[in-house]
Amino acid sequence: MTTIKDSVHDYIELGPVAEALLDTAPMQRLRYVRQLSTVQLVYPSANHTRFEHSLGVYHLASNAVDQLDLDSALADRLRAAALVHDVGHGPFGHQTEAAIERHLGRHHDEIEWLLAATELGAVLEEQGLDPAAVAATVDGRGPLGDLVSGALDVDRMDYLVRDAHHTGVPYGTIDHARLVRAFRIVDGDLALADGNVATAESALIARTLMNATVYRHHVSRIAGSMLDRASERLLADGEVAPENFARLTDEELLATLADYEPTSDLARRLRDRSLYKRALWARRGAVPDRFVEIGYDRTRDLEREIAGEAGVDPSAVILDSPGDPSSPESRATVVVDGEPRRLEERSSLVAGLDACAREIWRLGVYAPPDDLAPVREAAATVLDVDGDPAP
Amino acid sequence: MTTIKDSVHDYIELGPVAEALLDTAPMQRLRYVRQLSTVQLVYPSANHTRFEHSLGVYHLASNAVDQLDLDSALADRLRAAALVHDVGHGPFGHQTEAAIERHLGRHHDEIEWLLAATELGAVLEEQGLDPAAVAATVDGRGPLGDLVSGALDVDRMDYLVRDAHHTGVPYGTIDHARLVRAFRIVDGDLALADGNVATAESALIARTLMNATVYRHHVSRIAGSMLDRASERLLADGEVAPENFARLTDEELLATLADYEPTSDLARRLRDRSLYKRALWARRGAVPDRFVEIGYDRTRDLEREIAGEAGVDPSAVILDSPGDPSSPESRATVVVDGEPRRLEERSSLVAGLDACAREIWRLGVYAPPDDLAPVREAAATVLDVDGDPAP
Amino acid sequence: MTTIKDSVHDYIELGPVAEALLDTAPMQRLRYVRQLSTVQLVYPSANHTRFEHSLGVYHLASNAVDQLDLDSALADRLRAAALVHDVGHGPFGHQTEAAIERHLGRHHDEIEWLLAATELGAVLEEQGLDPAAVAATVDGRGPLGDLVSGALDVDRMDYLVRDAHHTGVPYGTIDHARLVRAFRIVDGDLALADGNVATAESALIARTLMNATVYRHHVSRIAGSMLDRASERLLADGEVAPENFARLTDEELLATLADYEPTSDLARRLRDRSLYKRALWARRGAVPDRFVEIGYDRTRDLEREIAGEAGVDPSAVILDSPGDPSSPESRATVVVDGEPRRLEERSSLVAGLDACAREIWRLGVYAPPDDLAPVREAAATVLDVDGDPAP
Amino acid sequence: MTTIKDSVHDYIELGPVAEALLDTAPMQRLRYVRQLSTVQLVYPSANHTRFEHSLGVYHLASNAVDQLDLDSALADRLRAAALVHDVGHGPFGHQTEAAIERHLGRHHDEIEWLLAATELGAVLEEQGLDPAAVAATVDGRGPLGDLVSGALDVDRMDYLVRDAHHTGVPYGTIDHARLVRAFRIVDGDLALADGNVATAESALIARTLMNATVYRHHVSRIAGSMLDRASERLLADGEVAPENFARLTDEELLATLADYEPTSDLARRLRDRSLYKRALWARRGAVPDRFVEIGYDRTRDLEREIAGEAGVDPSAVILDSPGDPSSPESRATVVVDGEPRRLEERSSLVAGLDACAREIWRLGVYAPPDDLAPVREAAATVLDVDGDPAP
Repeated sequence: MTTIKDSVHDYIELGPVAEALLDTAPMQRLRYVRQLSTVQLVYPSANHTRFEHSLGVYHLASNAVDQLDLDSALADRLRAAALVHDVGHGPFGHQTEAAIERHLGRHHDEIEWLLAATELGAVLEEQGLDPAAVAATVDGRGPLGDLVSGALDVDRMDYLVRDAHHTGVPYGTIDHARLVRAFRIVDGDLALADGNVATAESALIARTLMNATVYRHHVSRIAGSMLDRASERLLADGEVAPENFARLTDEELLATLADYEPTSDLARRLRDRSLYKRALWARRGAVPDRFVEIGYDRTRDLEREIAGEAGVDPSAVILDSPGDPSSPESRATVVVDGEPRRLEERSSLVAGLDACAREIWRLGVYAPPDDLAPVREAAATVLDVDGDPAP
Repeated sequence: MTTIKDSVHDYIELGPVAEALLDTAPMQRLRYVRQLSTVQLVYPSANHTRFEHSLGVYHLASNAVDQLDLDSALADRLRAAALVHDVGHGPFGHQTEAAIERHLGRHHDEIEWLLAATELGAVLEEQGLDPAAVAATVDGRGPLGDLVSGALDVDRMDYLVRDAHHTGVPYGTIDHARLVRAFRIVDGDLALADGNVATAESALIARTLMNATVYRHHVSRIAGSMLDRASERLLADGEVAPENFARLTDEELLATLADYEPTSDLARRLRDRSLYKRALWARRGAVPDRFVEIGYDRTRDLEREIAGEAGVDPSAVILDSPGDPSSPESRATVVVDGEPRRLEERSSLVAGLDACAREIWRLGVYAPPDDLAPVREAAATVLDVDGDPAP
Repeated sequence: MTTIKDSVHDYIELGPVAEALLDTAPMQRLRYVRQLSTVQLVYPSANHTRFEHSLGVYHLASNAVDQLDLDSALADRLRAAALVHDVGHGPFGHQTEAAIERHLGRHHDEIEWLLAATELGAVLEEQGLDPAAVAATVDGRGPLGDLVSGALDVDRMDYLVRDAHHTGVPYGTIDHARLVRAFRIVDGDLALADGNVATAESALIARTLMNATVYRHHVSRIAGSMLDRASERLLADGEVAPENFARLTDEELLATLADYEPTSDLARRLRDRSLYKRALWARRGAVPDRFVEIGYDRTRDLEREIAGEAGVDPSAVILDSPGDPSSPESRATVVVDGEPRRLEERSSLVAGLDACAREIWRLGVYAPPDDLAPVREAAATVLDVDGDPAP
Repeated sequence: MTTIKDSVHDYIELGPVAEALLDTAPMQRLRYVRQLSTVQLVYPSANHTRFEHSLGVYHLASNAVDQLDLDSALADRLRAAALVHDVGHGPFGHQTEAAIERHLGRHHDEIEWLLAATELGAVLEEQGLDPAAVAATVDGRGPLGDLVSGALDVDRMDYLVRDAHHTGVPYGTIDHARLVRAFRIVDGDLALADGNVATAESALIARTLMNATVYRHHVSRIAGSMLDRASERLLADGEVAPENFARLTDEELLATLADYEPTSDLARRLRDRSLYKRALWARRGAVPDRFVEIGYDRTRDLEREIAGEAGVDPSAVILDSPGDPSSPESRATVVVDGEPRRLEERSSLVAGLDACAREIWRLGVYAPPDDLAPVREAAATVLDVDGDPAP
């Protein structure tokens, strides 16, 4: 049995299915997609990749599968799905997700097309696995799909601990071994055994604190917004076909952006960390509801309106209005006094953590340093922002 | 400059005041008082002591004092207070606290008598420090007393991280360096700089999760209750004078209990981990208010009543009804948009964490394994407990 | 299956045999015997115990046994032996070992008498295990006894890593998981698989560096020598029978020493860390061979001679002349190019590490601070020490 | 003061010089040069970069400079040199070093040209620093240049600990805080204070074990050899000017190789981890001296000779004959009994560690999987290798 040394889980044991899958180009590509994309611009040691994360998710899925004593066909499918669960991610992961969805019409968890289009499908079949079933599992569907993509999946467990290890921020350090040991199957779905409300809460807390400190850091959001606009231009201009775009690595995307004149300035700014800055930074309460949960087209219209008002080039304004926060962990099933219950029904913390998430929500308007003042004034007017718009 | 290697903070640098203080019997005694007293009966590696913890608190206070750029007289006083802050603890720390308070009439944070009664007072004076002022600081009074004993003191920062390191439970691993860096003085009191609501919350969360998992574990509570009853007997019978009792080490107390016939059985049970077990274990909602926040005498009356009802010896029943939980961190001052605010006014988590604390609250009735059944029935009747009384 | 949380190995799973063994007084006693005895006087956080270490050794033995795929009877015996391997240790472990051997005539690895004299023997038999076979395994005899006590046993693997974690000194942090994975059985004995010369060397290096930094620190050696002299007095005077002495805890021994007038001063000094100091501290090359590897009687004669020469009380001189260092790891079997070889035949490091061990060797003469000058002069004369005798 | 969170050193404080230097393209480029280049093909979590490493080296230099209490001009120069010490590295660091030296005629530690050619020189001057003096320090010349590049420099201290953290291999975890605290200036040069022979040895040991386990892993050597050949072709064909080549990032080099037909196959193999394999793998003793320490031209001649003998294309044979190992740490100055001495004069380990380094030396001949058999036979003949040539 092959073993791989990992910075988080120490030794990871691979079976033959895992070895065959690792030996494919789509899996090897994940070595060149950072787990935290532009977070490394804030936390310089956050350079870990979706490749090592995939190994970690595979490892935790293996432990869970052993502990649950599943039959070997299902166990193999879950392990395989855990290993390939991130192959659908484009360059810079979540930061090009929206652009890819707009042009490709698919979410990164829908990977059936990718299994068919690459050697991964054939390898799965050679190993006696049904690609469609594996793809469904990655999408959280089918038997125990929630182990790979659900309220308390092994994906989240690995990334919290791994992101803590590589950023140096301790908040993500959950007791993943306890969570995996607490897994039970109740009515066919994954649940945590009795006595584990606090165990589930700890995962939710960890994600909330990592959101506030790491994942939603404004520098990373600014870089991500710049990437989105540049990617959109590339895709809209037909410079790269969406299905090819989705398979670029982080650096291949940067190189492509640098080579195309309309996006070359944004590419240079990203590379040299000479980023746009916050012209406006507004709390949830200061922003009228009509500017939250807006679509892409409306966003671009508003950007143009702000740019017009400010007298700057439209490309000098980026509006970043995130949707309202979600908290999938709160729907985790935990057995309490013998009965399976939703975490949110039993936890006194879920409401507070939801409020925390709303508390850190910010609408941002970003602009090059030289244009900050006029863009701030124009944005505050156009978006009818209450109070001090400065960060 | 002398340095000491520490498992948590790596190198700790000592100045001359610290060296002189460490070289006294009251400080050396803390080598023999475990930080987590009977928690080692649940988490076997929790054998760290109040001595190393005192060094850690001194280290964090030193860092804070440097960062706040205080004048050297106040800085010396704060460092000294941090180092000696735990000398007032009796054997097994919090677990004999109530017995000592009943007989000595003093809380462990009131150490002025102890400084006078031991060489510590003289050493402080030799080093140019006023023992009374140091004692006040340990009690949280006087200039920046809240650094040593307050809503977000360095005591708590050290023990959370240290307890996590030595138990293996990750929840206590807070970002103490960030907290210390965030310290500011606002209107003469300690506050956290703007942008640190989540930093303060993380400390509160860590304590809540450590409470649920470590500090309030029922096995440790049972052992602590047994220690309290045995200590009470020793003190009530005049076997040891309270001021001497307060200066025993953990093991000296166990030896004293073992040598005195009326407490020897409890001592043996503690040593061999052959503890009482939970006859009854009731949530807050299942217990009538009249049985919460009751005094010691009422507790003993109820124990006798339960024992009578159950037909067992009174020593075979221990009632453990903790007070309602408190959350000092929620009163921490955090600067928000330039204004000092109480954390509880600004945090969406405080209420949820308070609810968590109530959620893990349990009233316990403990008895020797052979007496569990009758004691459970009797206790449920006497205490009018609603629902299933079994753990 | 019961699991225990450990600071080093995270979760340790216990089977029924382990649970039954843990529930005995001889095993619970190990909670009160520090793994590193007086090292905590130098490294304040070194308070971990032989109890948690025993759990760690059990855990590694379990992993090894699973990996080697042994038959279940042998596996159970090895696991049980790993768990109880330290029950023969007296108070303060190695620091009273010599005194116990002088009076009891047994080494701490010979535990057959103890299994018979305590409930441990009966528990082993109830669990279908032969106490004699378990005792032999603890002593390194019988099938795979070298897993528990041998050139590269799991005892050493656990203590190196655990001592590093709790002292803060990183040198002991070996890759124990790799060592356990490398275990093979070659001709009935334990060997490391091909390609593991460096793996074996790393364990030898770790112990050499931990010796230099932690285990052989002079303050701990002084405290240990004081303990030896006091223990000798207690045993020689018949104050405690040797078989009872061997079963005291650390603190019970200190209390016993404090209660007996002839040893009470040494006890107080140990408790208050007001230790003897180094009057003389001599390298191997500076000491004539006739003063190395000397017996206890000769040592005491020399002490008296030095005291006489110095004009001080005989109890004011302690001579500490350690034997020449040994290096059991160098006899570990490692497969090289398909052939089992002794590590020392294949490693270029063994000779250098042996030289290191000789390099840190020191003969010490210790005395109370007030007597240092005359004792130094007298000791240098009597022991014919070459060069500067001061530390 | 700006602080940066680091996975290894926690908070790193930046002064104005550091902030200005970080804000330049040559420093930002280091975010895209992996510290361990192709080691991530073996240890998947080894994706940390020369950027975070540079911050770590700066941090340790700052601590050293504070501890040595240097005058501020020298302190600033040393800090600046520590921060920029790696800007001269080409893509993939050491793995393109030889190709760059052949074509550019400069070693990566000679950075004066680079300071002049980029904004770095101007920034240094604006901050009152002399670029030539900073460049000399990076090269180990001038006052305390050995702090940045010497026998026991802070560069090595950081990379050992950082590489351990991100690979998961514990051997590099040295006590860097102790080393920095032990720094003294003796006769104008850096030395370790008395009592630190073992401290110095521990760094040498750590590098030796990391060499064996991580740095010289054959998969990384194979990938590095492939990179060297491809880079040579690119440079020899004039596709990229050497001074531009030296400033590519890892991914820019891979992209450039992929775009140039003669190197595109090697680039694809590197990206998909479909590497050459070991046809021959010979210990030092099995290789005639005339094939060790050979130049590049001779290497290529031998490759062609082997290819001819094997009947394969010349590009299908890579000969990798490393020079004899060196051990700069052995020339570290350590004070022993008041006298500065070379470590190698005082350490019993240096010789053994040198032997270890020779022990892990291997000459490799690599070829595509399909050509292994004929290349092995041809190489064994041409190179006159003694014994079994297979890995």
